[in-house]
Amino acid sequence: MIYADNAATTRMSEGAINTMLRLMKETFGNPSSLYETGQVAKEELERARAQIASMINAEPREIVFTSGGSEADNQAILSAAAIGKKKGKMHIVSSAFEHHAVLHTLDKLEKEGFEITLLDVNKDGIIRPEQVEQAIRQDTALVSIMYANNEIGTIQPIERIGQICKSKGVIFHTDAVQAIGHEIIDVKKENIDMLSASSHKFHGPKGVGFLYARRGIKLSNLIEGGAQEAGLRGGTENVPGIGAMAKALEEAYDNLSKNKESVGSKRDRIIEGLSKIPHSALNGDKDRRLYGNISFCFEGIEGEALLLLLDDKGIQASSGSACTSGSLDPSHVMLAIGRPHEVAHGSLRLSISDDITDEDVEYIIESVTQVVAYLRSISPVWRSLEAGNKEYIL
Amino acid sequence: MIYADNAATTRMSEGAINTMLRLMKETFGNPSSLYETGQVAKEELERARAQIASMINAEPREIVFTSGGSEADNQAILSAAAIGKKKGKMHIVSSAFEHHAVLHTLDKLEKEGFEITLLDVNKDGIIRPEQVEQAIRQDTALVSIMYANNEIGTIQPIERIGQICKSKGVIFHTDAVQAIGHEIIDVKKENIDMLSASSHKFHGPKGVGFLYARRGIKLSNLIEGGAQEAGLRGGTENVPGIGAMAKALEEAYDNLSKNKESVGSKRDRIIEGLSKIPHSALNGDKDRRLYGNISFCFEGIEGEALLLLLDDKGIQASSGSACTSGSLDPSHVMLAIGRPHEVAHGSLRLSISDDITDEDVEYIIESVTQVVAYLRSISPVWRSLEAGNKEYIL
Repeated sequence: MIYADNAATTRMSEGAINTMLRLMKETFGNPSSLYETGQVAKEELERARAQIASMINAEPREIVFTSGGSEADNQAILSAAAIGKKKGKMHIVSSAFEHHAVLHTLDKLEKEGFEITLLDVNKDGIIRPEQVEQAIRQDTALVSIMYANNEIGTIQPIERIGQICKSKGVIFHTDAVQAIGHEIIDVKKENIDMLSASSHKFHGPKGVGFLYARRGIKLSNLIEGGAQEAGLRGGTENVPGIGAMAKALEEAYDNLSKNKESVGSKRDRIIEGLSKIPHSALNGDKDRRLYGNISFCFEGIEGEALLLLLDDKGIQASSGSACTSGSLDPSHVMLAIGRPHEVAHGSLRLSISDDITDEDVEYIIESVTQVVAYLRSISPVWRSLEAGNKEYIL
Repeated sequence: MIYADNAATTRMSEGAINTMLRLMKETFGNPSSLYETGQVAKEELERARAQIASMINAEPREIVFTSGGSEADNQAILSAAAIGKKKGKMHIVSSAFEHHAVLHTLDKLEKEGFEITLLDVNKDGIIRPEQVEQAIRQDTALVSIMYANNEIGTIQPIERIGQICKSKGVIFHTDAVQAIGHEIIDVKKENIDMLSASSHKFHGPKGVGFLYARRGIKLSNLIEGGAQEAGLRGGTENVPGIGAMAKALEEAYDNLSKNKESVGSKRDRIIEGLSKIPHSALNGDKDRRLYGNISFCFEGIEGEALLLLLDDKGIQASSGSACTSGSLDPSHVMLAIGRPHEVAHGSLRLSISDDITDEDVEYIIESVTQVVAYLRSISPVWRSLEAGNKEYIL
């Protein structure tokens, strides 16, 4: 079985599992408790916080632990909106291909009177800094642009966008769920005010993530409750999960350059192989993308049938985001980069990790090529295209 | 070491740890993914949902998994408020000794124009159903009364309150974080519309809990995002944590009657022993309380010093809620049951579990008696009391 859906979730690393196990067994105390068992848990919690902070060049107190990336996105955006509202700033700039945790939170704010500008995405899947610059107004409270897209893996010009936001005095949030652990992120250098992250995207446990918020940015609670997380997030801290997340991120950083090179070169070989399929197209820029992401559209076929047949061949992949699977609508990301409905339905996302072998690479290319050919052979749409009754899009 | 702070958090059971480990290793897929690895995770998720639902006599689709009790409380209350607001119902009834996850969410709603009635708590730590009945108005959107109090362990007349709410057509939410797994709860029989629960209070993992919401009650998202949890809670489901929670709850139910009897009788012996300390008082009704909860006030001493000295003797306890430790204010629960500031500061909560031995019981009684006597011997307040310059409260 080749698991090629690491953008949906990853297999936990041995190191993360062992850390989790150790903390579940040995460090069960409540970090808010004053006696020893509690204080030992508190130390583990603060060690994890310091470790994670240092990896993105932040300070420990700038890290708030959450239940994952979605919670972090919600809290970041609602906090910036609350700050903006107090100053009469009711405008937010984001992009059309953000994750739904961002887009749906913006929908909520729109109902509350905020005006939302969603930037168009270029065909290469990359937002231009000038678009952000032009969209910012006097009353802009927040710019929220993802670090790397979850479906097509394109990496955005975050540092340049950060500079623009800083110079205009606008809060800049980035959903870095797909990028962290896979790209080096420096929140200070890149002028990032808020950043969301999720542990299970870098071989850590599910149900845990964090929000970085620059000192000076007053977070609003999404979850009201006790005084945990400096009063910014109620609920007993998930110390085993947080510790295991820190371990997984440490390992991800240790292997980052190696993976970027070796997994990246396998990604390139798969892209090269799949590009030979006629009337196919890579989604998003070839180079400015996550090292593990391969996203293609194939004309004349349905993505779901493609996935099922690949699953039969032992290749687990997806058509887009796992969060929207089951939906019959084409992916908003595919539409955002200008893929028409017809081909947006025929998308395939392979997201590979460091467990992929050279044989896997060959097998993936061979299998996808075969399955696409087979599906086309039984597709009425493809026959119309071949007969010249319809025009090829790709 | 005697861990006597199970109301703050519990040690994970072997069964819960093993379930977690198995799911982390074998079931890492994203339940939203259509291929096998995803569907296996989905099955585990739905098995846990069905299991948990059956234990409280609910239907699986009435269970939404959350990151814990605080998140569940927030979502329940905000959802009921949103439903009420649409009907012009802007009044909420709750009590003065709820958990801060409830009280602070109500504060938030008060700022948004809701009117909040916080019922007084009787000296015995129990809300009377008639108080709820009298407080309900035409415009009452929600009644939120905890199942059992987190500091003094008193169990509320939930079934009777549920009946009243049902007859008046008001949504009834109960924060059952302290009760579930320790008391049999039947949401249908008790007319509970919404219920919050947290896994780490019944020997399950931290960072996971659930919200029960009766069919027909439309939940609002607290966390916007993907289509997970029937669209009611964004974020990849924490399958290992959820599975381990179901396992822990199953075990808690298996041992419930046995624990109620055997831990309950040890609780009674500790209460009896500590009652012999002069000028001490049990907080809350002696019988209508959680089987593991012992809460006392001792005149003339500071709770924090008491805890430190008990910790030195190997007894880990707390003065009240772990969530507010570090705060210099006396507990709002102690004030709610009418303890004056002077003695509210001298409170001790011992919350025991089934790992407690007969020797532990004797050791606790002996140690608390000694430490209270010692602290009084060096307390100027106690000297004033003994000299008759001040009057005893207890």
